[in-house]
Amino acid sequence: MTAAVLYAPHDLRIEQRPIPTPSQGEVLVRILSVGVCGSDVHYYEHGRIGDFVVRAPLVLGHESSGQIVEVGKGVSPGRVGERVAIEPGEPCGRCDQCRSGRYNLCPNIRFHGTPPVDGTLSEFVIVKSDLAYAVPKEISDNAAALLEPLSVGIWANRKAGTQIGSSVLIAGAGPVGLVTAKVARAVGATRITVTDVNRNRLTAALASGATEIAVAGTDEVAGEFDAFIDCSGSSRAVDAGVRSVRQVRSSSSGWARMS
Amino acid sequence: MTAAVLYAPHDLRIEQRPIPTPSQGEVLVRILSVGVCGSDVHYYEHGRIGDFVVRAPLVLGHESSGQIVEVGKGVSPGRVGERVAIEPGEPCGRCDQCRSGRYNLCPNIRFHGTPPVDGTLSEFVIVKSDLAYAVPKEISDNAAALLEPLSVGIWANRKAGTQIGSSVLIAGAGPVGLVTAKVARAVGATRITVTDVNRNRLTAALASGATEIAVAGTDEVAGEFDAFIDCSGSSRAVDAGVRSVRQVRSSSSGWARMS
Amino acid sequence: MTAAVLYAPHDLRIEQRPIPTPSQGEVLVRILSVGVCGSDVHYYEHGRIGDFVVRAPLVLGHESSGQIVEVGKGVSPGRVGERVAIEPGEPCGRCDQCRSGRYNLCPNIRFHGTPPVDGTLSEFVIVKSDLAYAVPKEISDNAAALLEPLSVGIWANRKAGTQIGSSVLIAGAGPVGLVTAKVARAVGATRITVTDVNRNRLTAALASGATEIAVAGTDEVAGEFDAFIDCSGSSRAVDAGVRSVRQVRSSSSGWARMS
Amino acid sequence: MTAAVLYAPHDLRIEQRPIPTPSQGEVLVRILSVGVCGSDVHYYEHGRIGDFVVRAPLVLGHESSGQIVEVGKGVSPGRVGERVAIEPGEPCGRCDQCRSGRYNLCPNIRFHGTPPVDGTLSEFVIVKSDLAYAVPKEISDNAAALLEPLSVGIWANRKAGTQIGSSVLIAGAGPVGLVTAKVARAVGATRITVTDVNRNRLTAALASGATEIAVAGTDEVAGEFDAFIDCSGSSRAVDAGVRSVRQVRSSSSGWARMS
Repeated sequence: MTAAVLYAPHDLRIEQRPIPTPSQGEVLVRILSVGVCGSDVHYYEHGRIGDFVVRAPLVLGHESSGQIVEVGKGVSPGRVGERVAIEPGEPCGRCDQCRSGRYNLCPNIRFHGTPPVDGTLSEFVIVKSDLAYAVPKEISDNAAALLEPLSVGIWANRKAGTQIGSSVLIAGAGPVGLVTAKVARAVGATRITVTDVNRNRLTAALASGATEIAVAGTDEVAGEFDAFIDCSGSSRAVDAGVRSVRQVRSSSSGWARMS
Repeated sequence: MTAAVLYAPHDLRIEQRPIPTPSQGEVLVRILSVGVCGSDVHYYEHGRIGDFVVRAPLVLGHESSGQIVEVGKGVSPGRVGERVAIEPGEPCGRCDQCRSGRYNLCPNIRFHGTPPVDGTLSEFVIVKSDLAYAVPKEISDNAAALLEPLSVGIWANRKAGTQIGSSVLIAGAGPVGLVTAKVARAVGATRITVTDVNRNRLTAALASGATEIAVAGTDEVAGEFDAFIDCSGSSRAVDAGVRSVRQVRSSSSGWARMS
Repeated sequence: MTAAVLYAPHDLRIEQRPIPTPSQGEVLVRILSVGVCGSDVHYYEHGRIGDFVVRAPLVLGHESSGQIVEVGKGVSPGRVGERVAIEPGEPCGRCDQCRSGRYNLCPNIRFHGTPPVDGTLSEFVIVKSDLAYAVPKEISDNAAALLEPLSVGIWANRKAGTQIGSSVLIAGAGPVGLVTAKVARAVGATRITVTDVNRNRLTAALASGATEIAVAGTDEVAGEFDAFIDCSGSSRAVDAGVRSVRQVRSSSSGWARMS
Repeated sequence: MTAAVLYAPHDLRIEQRPIPTPSQGEVLVRILSVGVCGSDVHYYEHGRIGDFVVRAPLVLGHESSGQIVEVGKGVSPGRVGERVAIEPGEPCGRCDQCRSGRYNLCPNIRFHGTPPVDGTLSEFVIVKSDLAYAVPKEISDNAAALLEPLSVGIWANRKAGTQIGSSVLIAGAGPVGLVTAKVARAVGATRITVTDVNRNRLTAALASGATEIAVAGTDEVAGEFDAFIDCSGSSRAVDAGVRSVRQVRSSSSGWARMS
């Protein structure tokens, strides 16, 4: 099978590799679509993201859909032929974070396209059966690949408590900012303000559910918000955002500020 | 009756005032004990705290216990003689914060000893009947007066989710830090680390429930905590504290950070 | 002004009454639309609902919209002319339930059209300013009157935790069942099963967001649900519904069942 | 090694079995203490609990402490000699319940002493390394074995939201009722009412944290409670208990009752 393998910054090679065989509880998926995430681009250009360094040839890609073509022991043969979206992180299932239902924070997680775990920019990949989710036919291959970033927007809004009538401030109108705005709209938020330094991105935000846009650092954003979600990575945006949220009681919050 | 009235910084006068009469739903309380809060001292020394400025003569004091000596219409005459702890803030009961159960954040709150609302450093005060809480005889007059700061410690730990086996980092070993440590201990926290720049205060913390103390800026605090509670007002302490808390999902948190 | 006054079961009289004057914090509203609730019908037919007995002539009606025509002291004169939806229950704002943010459970609540509090089936009514909510022009007078039952559906779904992808079982396809189904759909539930004994009502449910209907006591409802909401008042429906919900941890639930 | 093996009701045989060898991630524990649970007794007397039927010889016991004597691959050799409490249920770590942090509800859980999984009434047992928890020397072998039922009491109170000042009604004064009362006391509940039909058990409850006891079906229990916890299995107790809880909003509750 063909795979795109990163050897070093700007050194991406198309190689032939043997098709792997699924073990117990695994499925072999023929890849149909892979989104290119900002992190993929970052590894391609810099060979690392913080402490994650590409030290050995690495297949990138983690926003993926495909079709199950073979199943390992313990997996229903009826799944062969199923079109699936792939969850890219395999948690350990045993650590404190996993046991508490926060498997996204599992320190032992093996995440597609993050060194040293190969990603999905290849013709076939092996994944655990329970991380391959059947998708209905109304969802295209490309859309199925984008369920991973969409889930980030769902999760962010769930943590933020977005609901009918909420006002939400979203910093950053990149792809994650856009899916976050779309989800906020889908669950009933009525004020969705998106900020960015890039006017083109802000135009895209208006088409993705934003009810209001503002150029960061230039436009004034009036009023208080029920929630702030940072999709920018900018510490200035975080500072401004936190200050724009109205005081709330957060009974399960991890830290408390004495007023 | 006698009252201690602040006219300007360091200008506190003992005056005679008429004893007020309770209206509908109110009680007249003869004051038995009043704690002196850091905010009282601050008003005494500076005549203001931020936007709250002493523009007219003001009675300070808000940590108070007393005995009901007269009741207004609509209050059971049986309450006369009752020994009570006084909740110092009277919320409006109608704003969004009040209706959401966050009356501590009511923007219309009238708070004892905060301009322009007179406090309790006088022989008698009028309070709403439902803000005067009967105390059992096991609780002394002085202890009853301190139920107000104690409730800050209860609330902080409730927001922080402190429970059996929790590890809690508390910055600041002033009176609020101490009651916060005491409450953390009372609800079952097993690691209670208190930091301060003052070694005498840290010694007091050890006597108030702390299992571990650290001189801020000098001693290293190892490991991660389930919760951080700031009782110091120091932004450096807040920065360090936030970083010492382990990652948690906070479903009702007011803002979300994308990891 | 004209008012419809209930004297006894089936004895509803159209009377002339003086137009009242708003006091401090109140507004006078000219009524534009009033929905007829099942409880109104019940009072009309039986003169009582449980312990609530019509002992004196009573104006019914509590699902109401109108226009502010006069304001009392402390209310902005700018509100005159404003079209409003009226919240029918006036809580005390001081009891434990109110202070905890559950003012819907206030034992002292004064609720329109519930003895001995007159309702809104009259030309004018007085309400507290903060219980008259401005409505945008996109919402008709009739729709504004129905915001009250709609809010029941919003609240029920909020308590049930309905969110993107939820499966919800709703017992009862009366008006409250229908708004509950509509809201479940609006916030992203993907399986919304409505049960009723009446097939006509079930047909209405399909037009109101239900994805599936079932005749209660006849049709089998397969699978487990994330949430069950009872809008039927039938104890058999409640029994069946509770059993159809999958096991969940409910950290803030008021009672716990040992498994 | 010696093991106590149940063949049929009242047919318990002491047998010799080979000492097992720990695999990857497992530890071999020499058993020091095993509590006898009501479920163990039930299997002994009836050979089944509901759908769980003893079809093959079974070692009972699941409340256990011991000492690690050997470790498998991937486990630190430093654990040899460690005294541990054993968590009796091994969840799958992959199902929806596990991923949501409710591994106690895992349908694939393998639970000690529940058919067909052997328990701990033998000299040695193999357990996953992460289900063997080090205990400090202050906790005796017998106490360590009882951490399992104690955790039931902790969990029940956590679900019930028991906190400082809570009033809690506990039905049943068996061992689980007693640990539940103890925990309620430890986290600050001030009214802990325990009911049972057996007066001896109620006397034990008074020694275990109850502030009030009542003979079920005979004594009247006055007032409302913040929470009800059933440790009786009696449907009459559940009915009465649910009715004794005051109305609360439970935002994350799995089902909602329209008031």
